[in-house]
Amino acid sequence: MLKNTERIDELFREKMKIIQSDETFSFSVDALLLANFVKPTKRTNEIIDLCAGNGIVPLLLSHKTNAEIVGVEVQDRLVDMANRSIEMNDKSDQITMVEQDINNIKSEFKHSIADIVTVNPPYFKNNQPVHQNTHHQIARTEVLITLEEIIKASKYLIKNKGKLYMVHRAERIGEVIEYMHKHGFRVSRMQFVYSTKHSKNALFVLVEAIFNSDAFVKVESSFYIYNHDRTYTEEMLEVYYG
Amino acid sequence: MLKNTERIDELFREKMKIIQSDETFSFSVDALLLANFVKPTKRTNEIIDLCAGNGIVPLLLSHKTNAEIVGVEVQDRLVDMANRSIEMNDKSDQITMVEQDINNIKSEFKHSIADIVTVNPPYFKNNQPVHQNTHHQIARTEVLITLEEIIKASKYLIKNKGKLYMVHRAERIGEVIEYMHKHGFRVSRMQFVYSTKHSKNALFVLVEAIFNSDAFVKVESSFYIYNHDRTYTEEMLEVYYG
Repeated sequence: MLKNTERIDELFREKMKIIQSDETFSFSVDALLLANFVKPTKRTNEIIDLCAGNGIVPLLLSHKTNAEIVGVEVQDRLVDMANRSIEMNDKSDQITMVEQDINNIKSEFKHSIADIVTVNPPYFKNNQPVHQNTHHQIARTEVLITLEEIIKASKYLIKNKGKLYMVHRAERIGEVIEYMHKHGFRVSRMQFVYSTKHSKNALFVLVEAIFNSDAFVKVESSFYIYNHDRTYTEEMLEVYYG
Repeated sequence: MLKNTERIDELFREKMKIIQSDETFSFSVDALLLANFVKPTKRTNEIIDLCAGNGIVPLLLSHKTNAEIVGVEVQDRLVDMANRSIEMNDKSDQITMVEQDINNIKSEFKHSIADIVTVNPPYFKNNQPVHQNTHHQIARTEVLITLEEIIKASKYLIKNKGKLYMVHRAERIGEVIEYMHKHGFRVSRMQFVYSTKHSKNALFVLVEAIFNSDAFVKVESSFYIYNHDRTYTEEMLEVYYG
């Protein structure tokens, strides 16, 4: 079942397993934090995860909702990995992977079908130096799709009053809000993630935005990954182990 | 020198005094935090403070820069209070108050003259219930001017690469960024202010934005006003007493 360079890692809190590979894609703490930040309700029927990679966010979300979850990923190698992980966790009834370029989302998906869209997008602009291989370039850099294009695709997919959840580098929060507002979303919750309480600047931002809303923003208490001695904080241990 | 209902309060760190009145305007912690957040350099020649109220921000800034500071305030009663405070602190050579509606800023000020614009704007939209008297309404609610109009006025006043500093309620950070980006500013620094480390949501946000820039955002470590026992935190004591 495992192919060259692949390994199986544990998702402890969710009691699941996931196929990873340093050569193509391994999830990071940001994917865990994104899934943790999402708040599905009993009325959530359909979740679409864009830039789904090896399926980490769909797998994590399947632990907290019965909604149907669709993962969209452009790289066939990652779709293949995700499909095997979905099978391994016996989640084929709930999670479907679709190999699709988000720029052509309309060819595969109907308009306004998702209660929730989640995305852990490429973090870096395409004008920055790239030292990674192609799989990593596509996942980490805006080679195939930009932030604004992702938000436009989310707008197409999402129902009225549906929620878009995104994790991004904190330094790009200005653009994230600019494009969300431009395309009809209003930010409703934000949380900044710091390495430690002594970090000068935040690493990540978690954003919840509502489509067609007048929401004000709740900026939640900051999230810290590490204690001063580099052990995990209690809130981080909770995300990992429950 | 003091008029009806007025009193003199101390600015401890700056060793200054300021005329206040509960009937018209008394500064709050947000004005102190705004002035503290501003970073004038040796090349800062001209600072304009919009919605200057009783002159609290110009007075505080005069302690950390030799730049010329102009306070713009629409309410004559507050301009009068500010002028007497400026005189009392012997700051008439550095600080000037101008009684002016920001919507008519072009009638009084030339284009692109400020290295720094600071503003502690009215926090509440005009559609919310108002229980205050008129002086407070104008200072706290968008009766005479909206957030977007303030940012447009700032754009008119500011030099290329000049900096705009704003404090606002954290819940309005979405609109603050939307309008700043719309009018040519890019957010370069942000800091969220919480009552305590256990607060669920942030109270205020401090924003630094650069005009005509590609800056990424540095989201600084969160600021906490109170300890758990309601005494001031060390960082807050530093702002008050130095």
